[in-house]
Amino acid sequence: MSRAPTGIHTIIAIERGSAKPLYRQLYEGYREAIIDRRLRAGQKLPSTRSLANELRISRIPVLNAFEQLLAEGYLESRVGAGTFVASSLPGEAPARERRTPASSTLAQPGRRVVSRRAAEPVQAEVEPWLEGWGAFRVSQPAVERFPIQVWARLVSRHCRRSPRSLLNYGDPMGYKPFRETLASYLRTVRGLRCEAEQIMVVSGSQQALELSARVLLDPGSPVWVEDPGYAGARQLLAQAGARLVPVPVDDEGLEVATGMARSPKARAVYVTPSHQYPLGVTMSASRRLQLLEWAQRSGAWIIEDDYDSEFRYESLPVPALQGLDRDARVIYIGSFSKVLFPALRVGYLVIPADLVPRFARARDAMDLFPPTLYPPVLADFIGEGHFARHLRRMRALYRERRSALVEALGKEFGPALRVIGAQAGMHLVATLPPGMGDRQLSVRAAQERLWVMPLSSCYLGEASRQGLVLGFGGTSASDMPDAVRRLRTVLGPMKRQG
Amino acid sequence: MSRAPTGIHTIIAIERGSAKPLYRQLYEGYREAIIDRRLRAGQKLPSTRSLANELRISRIPVLNAFEQLLAEGYLESRVGAGTFVASSLPGEAPARERRTPASSTLAQPGRRVVSRRAAEPVQAEVEPWLEGWGAFRVSQPAVERFPIQVWARLVSRHCRRSPRSLLNYGDPMGYKPFRETLASYLRTVRGLRCEAEQIMVVSGSQQALELSARVLLDPGSPVWVEDPGYAGARQLLAQAGARLVPVPVDDEGLEVATGMARSPKARAVYVTPSHQYPLGVTMSASRRLQLLEWAQRSGAWIIEDDYDSEFRYESLPVPALQGLDRDARVIYIGSFSKVLFPALRVGYLVIPADLVPRFARARDAMDLFPPTLYPPVLADFIGEGHFARHLRRMRALYRERRSALVEALGKEFGPALRVIGAQAGMHLVATLPPGMGDRQLSVRAAQERLWVMPLSSCYLGEASRQGLVLGFGGTSASDMPDAVRRLRTVLGPMKRQG
Repeated sequence: MSRAPTGIHTIIAIERGSAKPLYRQLYEGYREAIIDRRLRAGQKLPSTRSLANELRISRIPVLNAFEQLLAEGYLESRVGAGTFVASSLPGEAPARERRTPASSTLAQPGRRVVSRRAAEPVQAEVEPWLEGWGAFRVSQPAVERFPIQVWARLVSRHCRRSPRSLLNYGDPMGYKPFRETLASYLRTVRGLRCEAEQIMVVSGSQQALELSARVLLDPGSPVWVEDPGYAGARQLLAQAGARLVPVPVDDEGLEVATGMARSPKARAVYVTPSHQYPLGVTMSASRRLQLLEWAQRSGAWIIEDDYDSEFRYESLPVPALQGLDRDARVIYIGSFSKVLFPALRVGYLVIPADLVPRFARARDAMDLFPPTLYPPVLADFIGEGHFARHLRRMRALYRERRSALVEALGKEFGPALRVIGAQAGMHLVATLPPGMGDRQLSVRAAQERLWVMPLSSCYLGEASRQGLVLGFGGTSASDMPDAVRRLRTVLGPMKRQG
Repeated sequence: MSRAPTGIHTIIAIERGSAKPLYRQLYEGYREAIIDRRLRAGQKLPSTRSLANELRISRIPVLNAFEQLLAEGYLESRVGAGTFVASSLPGEAPARERRTPASSTLAQPGRRVVSRRAAEPVQAEVEPWLEGWGAFRVSQPAVERFPIQVWARLVSRHCRRSPRSLLNYGDPMGYKPFRETLASYLRTVRGLRCEAEQIMVVSGSQQALELSARVLLDPGSPVWVEDPGYAGARQLLAQAGARLVPVPVDDEGLEVATGMARSPKARAVYVTPSHQYPLGVTMSASRRLQLLEWAQRSGAWIIEDDYDSEFRYESLPVPALQGLDRDARVIYIGSFSKVLFPALRVGYLVIPADLVPRFARARDAMDLFPPTLYPPVLADFIGEGHFARHLRRMRALYRERRSALVEALGKEFGPALRVIGAQAGMHLVATLPPGMGDRQLSVRAAQERLWVMPLSSCYLGEASRQGLVLGFGGTSASDMPDAVRRLRTVLGPMKRQG
């Protein structure tokens, strides 16, 4: 109970004019709170002096009430420590209505209707390959290498010294100096065309996409999504009422021509051009131009999710699609979840200038404004060069882990697994021989705490390929051979089935 | 430019096999980036050595390219400091397509359609009484009294020592030990019946309401709202597609009977029973029971927003409505914005046990999970007694500020203004003599940087009273007489008009 609140007073109603004496009211109030389990065994009570002060009554009735509660065994006193709710209640006083989280214990509730979208059955269990963290788990960065001491120093500095005004309500777009830093970074490193005024600080890619959906989409709006693609984005867009149009991905990225054939008048397209999720392809220059040209002609929006393009191993970074856009139709989404750490919950949107007031209004309605501690910390982290240093180190680290994985896969599985999309990011795809099903392999692996995602789970339509999506961000190069060996044991021999 | 990123490399495409020499490719790449304003005057360039490393080429072409850029005036070198983009460009090179935030500068964009809800015109200016912070601004807490040193110590401790696992992806419900602390606090102080499993950590009341709307409401669902009431909640519910049913508020709180007459089958009701916003009324016990009884009979949800009940000055705190509910229909919303500081962005939802999986799913889709730094800090802040101490101090401080305001209003305005709702919270209402309009007074006051909100702006239907909503949280007791004197000067004599 060390985390129970300290110095807090129980809510006990007393009535000064009542015929019932004050001590009796207090006694009954506490007894009721204990039997009701609003006060729990071991919870500390305030001192009688402080309680009398709070209630603005004399200390006598409080002392009398506590004495009786102690005598009857509802409270117990520990020398030098104070008065506590007794660890076992007198006479096995039945705990009334012990509410537990299981719905089965609810007293016959009346009619209860939730929204149609919430009414869909909640899956009893999540997909088994998403149940744990460890070897091969996609999106797991090497948080153990984050320079926490440097970070803690900056956090501490800003927490102590930031102006008090930063504690008050803030701008729905976020802290301006940080947005200046971000704009400069994105222009320099990602080739964006943007000003700080176009940048909104959000809690991550998911909120960025949520806001984009609100501002750009209506129920029923057709939206192209990459197939295979990122399930989190797909679910969000579907929940927002969009009609999803799956568009296949080949070695050049999104097949724009297929999209045009399937839904020429789509309201928007969701793409990961720098490093397609999950296949790892980089969208070719000609496809980029084709996509921009179609979007301009048809009046579509392009939502560019640039979730991990900082990590490229075999070629220079590719500029963002946003930098090629001359028609203000790209909404660019970035996040620090992969490059720093996920629990930071800081991402950003780069918004076409004329849409800024609409995005700001949607944000204000959704959750007012972002927290103000991390943005100045991040501005310094970037401005003082720690960010560049961390990126360089992580790029080297992930390159090493990637190579260890590719090598071990070759050694253990030979040509049975074909590796694709290993040029960038924190995961790669190993496609399976024809006829093999990826789902059952992933289920089997998860039983051994090896978290490989089946490629087929990333498809909206029918899966045209089967494979395993293998994260390498969270496993050290020296642990990799063993993890891959265990994977081979679990998967068994790789040969054509059926 | 001190906040520009340091040590970051510009994105320049070079092609090793090209007929164009490397130095020429680099020269053109940088020149283009500077003319394009992706690199800006004064921005520092990485060293030639580091650039050559990054590009995996020899240093010679880099040196040659930089030399030419320096010679032509695109770059300038500062002794001992490095190489920078020149502060004025050679030959007045026209900055191509200088994109500014004004939409007017966009090159003729093609067709662009936003969502219907985003298409509503964005107000050119916000309501003038919401434009600044200072005297009388509603919801402005005394952030200058927040114990920032204690807080910074806890932040620093957790930032340095928390397990690395807290940097990774987290639980959509939030950090469990903090939810245990909160559950214990809410049971003890607010009389809630809840377990930690029912608590979700969110970014504030607004996100809590947003999630509730998603899980509980469909487009067109009728929802009772207090009238007058909180505009932020009203806007959010309307955006979520709810049909708002205004229900008047009298001295006992929400007029349940009127609600039942207007919309007996409402899907939900949004209420602030502990301290009605803005009137400051506390809902009577009989109304509470009437509301619960109606909700159970009709199958409605009750969304209880308990935004500032910690501050009561003339009586003991009133237990939350949630504690009376035996039918799991109350969704309870709380926030630390008022009791600690708004930029914390930490609030919470207490959810009926059987709805937890649905809320968790909605949260996961919206923004995955809350940041993990503050919850353990808050758990210690509460567990070590700092929270109770801060609350006691703030209650005394606000009581003093409240009394100073009431006294000054009496002195300056006499019986012309009638004060209501001053028993709790951080604001009160001064109703105007019949026939006087509050809006024009508020506009006039805002011109003098006195932020009084017109009561009529809180009405959804026709305003049945005119008055001024006066915040006292952000003005010291000693500054209060002067602020009220200035207000009287601005408002002029208070007499019946028309």
